[in-house]
Amino acid sequence: MESAIPPHLKTDRSRHRRVPDDYSPPYPSFVARHKPTVTRVVMAYFGLQYRGEPPAAVASALGEIARRFTGANGPSHWDRAQYVDQAGFSNVVSVAYWDDVAKFDAWFGPAREAWTGDGATGIGRYIEVLRPSVARYETLFSSLGRAEGVAVIADGMSGAVQEHAYWGGMRDRIALSQTDEMAPGGKPALVRDGGRLRVNAHANLCLIRSGQDWSDTDAAERKLYLEEVEPVLREGMEFLRDEGLGIGCYANRYMRVLGADGTPTEKSYGQSWWKSLAALERWAESHPTHVKIFGAAMKYLSTLGPAAKLRLYHEVTVAAADEQFFEYRDCHPATGMLAGVEAVAAV
Amino acid sequence: MESAIPPHLKTDRSRHRRVPDDYSPPYPSFVARHKPTVTRVVMAYFGLQYRGEPPAAVASALGEIARRFTGANGPSHWDRAQYVDQAGFSNVVSVAYWDDVAKFDAWFGPAREAWTGDGATGIGRYIEVLRPSVARYETLFSSLGRAEGVAVIADGMSGAVQEHAYWGGMRDRIALSQTDEMAPGGKPALVRDGGRLRVNAHANLCLIRSGQDWSDTDAAERKLYLEEVEPVLREGMEFLRDEGLGIGCYANRYMRVLGADGTPTEKSYGQSWWKSLAALERWAESHPTHVKIFGAAMKYLSTLGPAAKLRLYHEVTVAAADEQFFEYRDCHPATGMLAGVEAVAAV
Repeated sequence: MESAIPPHLKTDRSRHRRVPDDYSPPYPSFVARHKPTVTRVVMAYFGLQYRGEPPAAVASALGEIARRFTGANGPSHWDRAQYVDQAGFSNVVSVAYWDDVAKFDAWFGPAREAWTGDGATGIGRYIEVLRPSVARYETLFSSLGRAEGVAVIADGMSGAVQEHAYWGGMRDRIALSQTDEMAPGGKPALVRDGGRLRVNAHANLCLIRSGQDWSDTDAAERKLYLEEVEPVLREGMEFLRDEGLGIGCYANRYMRVLGADGTPTEKSYGQSWWKSLAALERWAESHPTHVKIFGAAMKYLSTLGPAAKLRLYHEVTVAAADEQFFEYRDCHPATGMLAGVEAVAAV
Repeated sequence: MESAIPPHLKTDRSRHRRVPDDYSPPYPSFVARHKPTVTRVVMAYFGLQYRGEPPAAVASALGEIARRFTGANGPSHWDRAQYVDQAGFSNVVSVAYWDDVAKFDAWFGPAREAWTGDGATGIGRYIEVLRPSVARYETLFSSLGRAEGVAVIADGMSGAVQEHAYWGGMRDRIALSQTDEMAPGGKPALVRDGGRLRVNAHANLCLIRSGQDWSDTDAAERKLYLEEVEPVLREGMEFLRDEGLGIGCYANRYMRVLGADGTPTEKSYGQSWWKSLAALERWAESHPTHVKIFGAAMKYLSTLGPAAKLRLYHEVTVAAADEQFFEYRDCHPATGMLAGVEAVAAV
């Protein structure tokens, strides 16, 4: 049993973990491990937004960003997913991961200009980037053998970790929680810059990407997942999408991952922006929509036991104010962090 | 909004609460408030155990202890409840509360001798007593107007408190949690003293009494409670009774409260002994049996909203080693803390 916090990120604590030192989780889970030389990663979401059938600009934009991803200083890993948002728009989001901020910075300028610059017209575009210190995010995987998201660019996976399977484990896996409450500060503010709208969010904004992969399930387990768990998960995701603001969720996207040929795979993830880790914790542990998800997942896993082939993972980041970048162009006003804006400023 | 920890028990913290200072619970709950002069209370459980129809000794013992309760130095409040345990024995438990340890000590000697002394034969008898410092226990009530248990002897009830409706609220309401993890120490040991068996448990043993009162519900709500919630609660109580040891629950009793005439009322409570507050926390927040209870209660309360007339309360104590007393006579070996004994010593 190892701690989710790697030795090189251990510090003298001013804050305690939620469980005693002899706590033993009832089932194994794992976290991504970077080499200690990695001090910061980049998680960059490039979104397209359109209504109805995809205009030609969609395919060309997707092709262009894919070429950029594979070019010089491109990400170590990226994937793509889609969903239909609360305003009825289709959104295709390409997510890219770097573990070298200098490379990202060298890469980002022209890619940004192509994505949200004045030449980009006809469809909505957005870029949402976090570049957190490794002390500011955590991952969790229900099984080994298939990394997802930021874990793909890690050096590997841990052994079974201690800090999971209890409410508060998410916080306890984040190295910064040893010394910091990670309280939010300030409110999201809009900055107009020509056709671009940027959002300056606030300290300790929280991002979660929480994924499901049912591609390995046999027919019986797939049926159980799709009929008993997925509808409850979808209901919770739709609550966050439509009514999340009241509980501190600025935006939620329940995404279906796309394969290399652009067709849906048997993987999905929820991606949401939160005012704080605490707000995410409160929803997860006590809101009826997530209590139902948790109950359905518990029933599923206790029915199947270790034979379950469903794979679950997540990554959660609590970003400092200077680790964030949000930029929108020609998007509807409930897109991403635009939904959280209360004040408007001009450049 | 007030803290569950009263001002006179506030101390400089070495441990943080689980929620931020601006946390606001989604519904109101209340705690019992003693006068600041009360530094310690006594919670004394007097149990009788028999199989089948009650022998004559039951009525005479119940009558005698009731007379003692109303005599000099008797408790400020007591109640009585019954249940059938895992071995098929009926148990009648009279619970008495004092807020003056000197009075309890003056009262207890002859009462103990009458209950578990050599003259007490024919039926099983037990005495389980905690005398916690007020910094070592907490209460929680879903509504005002009907105190139960230790709250009856309090000075009154608080206004709406902050520390509830999240996992960890129970711990955060206990004043000692400001500075102490309340980790358990040692294992329960048996001491034989003639016909009496005493159990020396260990530091930070945990007791919960968690009650339900459906006497105010109208027909529709009563039906919902008895058909949708109570069976799930019963299932969880039976799990703890039959399989609790593996998760740190030494003993669990799902009691039906009796009226003054000895007939069942529309009140019940679960009463259980735990290795630690942490073990109780883990069961409550993640074990399938309690997740089901929580889900059923959430569904019930969200269906009924503020119109719900069901009353819920609990009291939770984490006792120091010298605040405990367990004594059994002619009881089966799975009774109360006897079930938790691993080592045997003789006086």
